[in-house]
Amino acid sequence: MMADVKPFVLDFDRLTGFCKSGKIQPMQRRVSNMASQFIDQEAARRLMENGDPLLYEFYGLDLPEKDGALQFGTTILYPGKVGKEYFMTKGHFHTILDTAEVYYGLSGHGVMLMETPEGEVECKEVHPGDALYVPGRWAHRSINTGDEPLVMFFVYRADAGHDYGTIEKKGYRKILVEQDGEPVLLDNPKWQEA
Amino acid sequence: MMADVKPFVLDFDRLTGFCKSGKIQPMQRRVSNMASQFIDQEAARRLMENGDPLLYEFYGLDLPEKDGALQFGTTILYPGKVGKEYFMTKGHFHTILDTAEVYYGLSGHGVMLMETPEGEVECKEVHPGDALYVPGRWAHRSINTGDEPLVMFFVYRADAGHDYGTIEKKGYRKILVEQDGEPVLLDNPKWQEA
Repeated sequence: MMADVKPFVLDFDRLTGFCKSGKIQPMQRRVSNMASQFIDQEAARRLMENGDPLLYEFYGLDLPEKDGALQFGTTILYPGKVGKEYFMTKGHFHTILDTAEVYYGLSGHGVMLMETPEGEVECKEVHPGDALYVPGRWAHRSINTGDEPLVMFFVYRADAGHDYGTIEKKGYRKILVEQDGEPVLLDNPKWQEA
Repeated sequence: MMADVKPFVLDFDRLTGFCKSGKIQPMQRRVSNMASQFIDQEAARRLMENGDPLLYEFYGLDLPEKDGALQFGTTILYPGKVGKEYFMTKGHFHTILDTAEVYYGLSGHGVMLMETPEGEVECKEVHPGDALYVPGRWAHRSINTGDEPLVMFFVYRADAGHDYGTIEKKGYRKILVEQDGEPVLLDNPKWQEA
């Protein structure tokens, strides 16, 4: 049996998402951590040479990875674009594929782009107060289509795991780019069937 | 295999907790739904005869009860007292005992009173922005010690189930009452070993 976990509280600011007490520190992802996933490679290179901006930050907890535990925290996705493509998270399937995730929008707005291994695609807008249900089997990537940080609280089963490799190799089937000031969902020219 | 669930969004107001679009309706619990659990039976009877006030409301979803799915929603616990005892929820163990629950404080403040079958007791304050982790095996009851509704977003495994019976029969080991304007944790005179 795993070591006992006692009830505990973490203070995540309702607007910024940051842990106010500093008890835990966020992980950070920059353009260089996922440069190959952007369509406009020249724009990605320029950003990396000019400070390699932060794309997003998120909190993770050191909890037992068992099916009765839950992992939770906040994710803070900054506004910006790489070429015409909005700042986004890496996106992933869960390693235990059929496990869900719940997001709750705290501030900013954007969309969650989701797809199944069979090729179904869904795109859902998230605004403050919106609870988004990502059922098991759906890969999910958040995308900031606004001009302020997109901050969400998330919860998933602690043993779900993250399969980033499938997305890194194949990409997403769709991309979200800005055209005439509006987000437009397009086929991903870089997507490849495994 | 269960019917597919597609990704979906529900809009819970960040302060009041209510589903703004009205897509789903909350369940309601009044004093009469748990009168036997309060210490001051005379005060409970008087309240029931005077409008039987709402103690709390909460949302539930019709999701497949499987271990890869998550149940979520908000709970709105009103301020007030039955005698000297603060308004509280029924409290429950999960039927699958070793499954966790996560709460996120949206508005108001109060405490979560928790206990294990072995008799450990924990009491954690929840303020807006606080994420509370209730590990598996811990019964949990929220208590409003403030003067506005205590609103929290919650997530737990969809097949966890609710065991209200154990608490209804035995009660909690501790009660939270107001003494000189402050919440004080006392032994529950009605608690009985099974």
